[in-house]
Amino acid sequence: MSDALRLGIAGLGTVGVGVVRIIQTHADMLRARSGREIVISAVSARSKGKDRGVDLSGYAWEDDPVALARREDVDVFVELMGGHEGAAKDAIEAAIATGKDVVTANKALLAHHGQAIAMAAEAAGRVVRFEAAVAGGIPVIKALTEGLAANRINRVVGVMNGTCNYILTRMQGAGLTYDQAFAEADGLGYLEADPNLDVGGIDAGHKLSLLSAIAFGTQVDFAGVELEGIGSVIIDDIQNADQMGYRIKLLGVAQMTGRGLEQRMSPCLVPQTSPLGQLVGGTNMVVLEGDAAGQIVLRGAGAGEGPTASAVMADVMDIARGLRLPTFGQPASTLRKVASARAAVPAPYYLRLSLLDKPGAMAKIAGALGEAGVSILRMRQHDHTGTHAPVVIVTHKTTRAALDMAIGLFAQTGVVDGDPVAIRIEEV
Amino acid sequence: MSDALRLGIAGLGTVGVGVVRIIQTHADMLRARSGREIVISAVSARSKGKDRGVDLSGYAWEDDPVALARREDVDVFVELMGGHEGAAKDAIEAAIATGKDVVTANKALLAHHGQAIAMAAEAAGRVVRFEAAVAGGIPVIKALTEGLAANRINRVVGVMNGTCNYILTRMQGAGLTYDQAFAEADGLGYLEADPNLDVGGIDAGHKLSLLSAIAFGTQVDFAGVELEGIGSVIIDDIQNADQMGYRIKLLGVAQMTGRGLEQRMSPCLVPQTSPLGQLVGGTNMVVLEGDAAGQIVLRGAGAGEGPTASAVMADVMDIARGLRLPTFGQPASTLRKVASARAAVPAPYYLRLSLLDKPGAMAKIAGALGEAGVSILRMRQHDHTGTHAPVVIVTHKTTRAALDMAIGLFAQTGVVDGDPVAIRIEEV
Repeated sequence: MSDALRLGIAGLGTVGVGVVRIIQTHADMLRARSGREIVISAVSARSKGKDRGVDLSGYAWEDDPVALARREDVDVFVELMGGHEGAAKDAIEAAIATGKDVVTANKALLAHHGQAIAMAAEAAGRVVRFEAAVAGGIPVIKALTEGLAANRINRVVGVMNGTCNYILTRMQGAGLTYDQAFAEADGLGYLEADPNLDVGGIDAGHKLSLLSAIAFGTQVDFAGVELEGIGSVIIDDIQNADQMGYRIKLLGVAQMTGRGLEQRMSPCLVPQTSPLGQLVGGTNMVVLEGDAAGQIVLRGAGAGEGPTASAVMADVMDIARGLRLPTFGQPASTLRKVASARAAVPAPYYLRLSLLDKPGAMAKIAGALGEAGVSILRMRQHDHTGTHAPVVIVTHKTTRAALDMAIGLFAQTGVVDGDPVAIRIEEV
Repeated sequence: MSDALRLGIAGLGTVGVGVVRIIQTHADMLRARSGREIVISAVSARSKGKDRGVDLSGYAWEDDPVALARREDVDVFVELMGGHEGAAKDAIEAAIATGKDVVTANKALLAHHGQAIAMAAEAAGRVVRFEAAVAGGIPVIKALTEGLAANRINRVVGVMNGTCNYILTRMQGAGLTYDQAFAEADGLGYLEADPNLDVGGIDAGHKLSLLSAIAFGTQVDFAGVELEGIGSVIIDDIQNADQMGYRIKLLGVAQMTGRGLEQRMSPCLVPQTSPLGQLVGGTNMVVLEGDAAGQIVLRGAGAGEGPTASAVMADVMDIARGLRLPTFGQPASTLRKVASARAAVPAPYYLRLSLLDKPGAMAKIAGALGEAGVSILRMRQHDHTGTHAPVVIVTHKTTRAALDMAIGLFAQTGVVDGDPVAIRIEEV
């Protein structure tokens, strides 16, 4: 039996408490599986006095996470505070500088500073692991970094924000408006303090940028993620999609193109019958496409105490067992810096627009599309009573550039009211 | 850069050729990700002259896989021959005895001799890895052993034989009889030389026994797997299930009960809307239920050159990267030998029987069920013309023992013709 592996845990919210609970209840099992005792030396959080439902009396307390990270009786610094600047960053840097391995659930921090942190860790011979940062309890970082290590990855696709999927599922299933479903999610405590992190696609975009780095051997490039939230999706879109055999999901897609790395986080139509189309509620799903393995689909809880703590502890167990990989699967110094290719890959699109009910209006729209080189797969004008007719168009595969040109031409026709909504159709 | 990792590959069928192809086409990527050159020193197969579509001229040739396993220029012996006795077993034992690590896709061998092989390897300080033995390209061994390492596993459920799922899917979708669907699968080359390995559930049972060992920390116990193939499923069962919102799958289920380890591989009804119910064709799916992570679903190709070679190479990459775990996730000497509990967990059942069309016949059946303590959820007699009426019964949750008692009582009623068919309903 080797020496015990000693943890310092910074952050005792839901996930931190979950980690403490696993270590307390499963000590024997963890030792049997890793060959080592996993112990907690010290913890840190904002409020020492708060009752968290677990016994912390056996652990040293630090008010300052940086002091925790520097403690001599800590082998692994477990960062569960969150935030992409400030204390979390300072503490991780201090941990690496004083020779600790790091386990973190902090997607925002790694999305912004992952390259620098990985470089520092590797220079110091330390590991930084982050299974819990992406898709909660699903071991997707491991599947990508290790399980598919011999694959050239063609594409990564995922639904990685459970709150957005909950909102879209409720609009679909219960016929709620976006505002109603948003309010319901809020009432259930599903939304971040800044809801735009969820519904604006930022949180999921952070996750996508981390998967991209591993999948394509590139430096994390969150700024290169094309971000579009779900706020523009209305109930009509959900219903139109349904009638055509699709569901709308906030979908992350990353793929290497001839023009650079394409990373998109945006609402997309996916076939109802596909695994992604069938995903309901707060569950997450990631699809990894390898040149040898083909399509691997992973599905599970994307958040919550147990699932996220499970992922944190998987990283801890790997360290206990002696697995030491570079943060993004290959040395950070070898990760390429590549151009970002916005919407480079052609796709069919769903278009919804409000047409003024004038003779020849439809012809003008069709003409604008034709002029931009966008061809029409289906076009439907809905029944209406007022002066505006809702029109839904599904295009053949086209580039986003051609589509934007067509939308620009719509404005000149004088028959389109307001901004058309364009949603990509992703075949997964 | 460390020294190269040198492989000896025994078996150059579909999977062996796939491994050679990955190493030849992705040498740079493998080196970037593992920090080491992955090279092939020598290969072995039945026929040296055969054109396999890959260039083998750079590798030494051995006619005898045992000689290959003993070569001094081999660090990792990759066993892709198959068969649970004979050459594959001899060669793996020779590899371990001469200080080699082992990667194998051989589920049958490990199902029968896994404990002995793991003990030998661990005594010699060698690792034996077998990601490719279960569910092809899906990194399920890794997910279970490492990704969920901090979870007490409650249950493992899986569709792990693509051929059976293909046959059942064709019966469901195209209305083929079992014999027609079997013949179609045979024509497509989906069946093993001994088809009973597939349709008898043996192949999938091998896989289940390996997952059980990891999940529950028990010695591999293939003899403890209750095996039932798909041969008794008729098109009426598929259609009856469909009408009630179910699909029939050859399902493996393993769970620890108060009376021991339950391992079943049998046709089951699963809800149409569940991920397992939606699985069509040759795809595999494994559901892992952890006490912290909850339900993790993994889906992907269960066979074929690319997927299986991807899994073999994942193991090779782990060894190249220095990951050294016990074969079944914890030292073989600590794996418990437990009793097998056949069908210990109660479940609802689907029953189909052929009733002689006599007055009071249904009452006698209902009486027999009542006497055995089995209560009826639904009971339906189908339209019929002849002297026999097809009857379908869905029970409430009951034990298999009670159900068997009821079936025994049916025989005494004098109104049931032939053997009733009982299929478990599994809520996943």
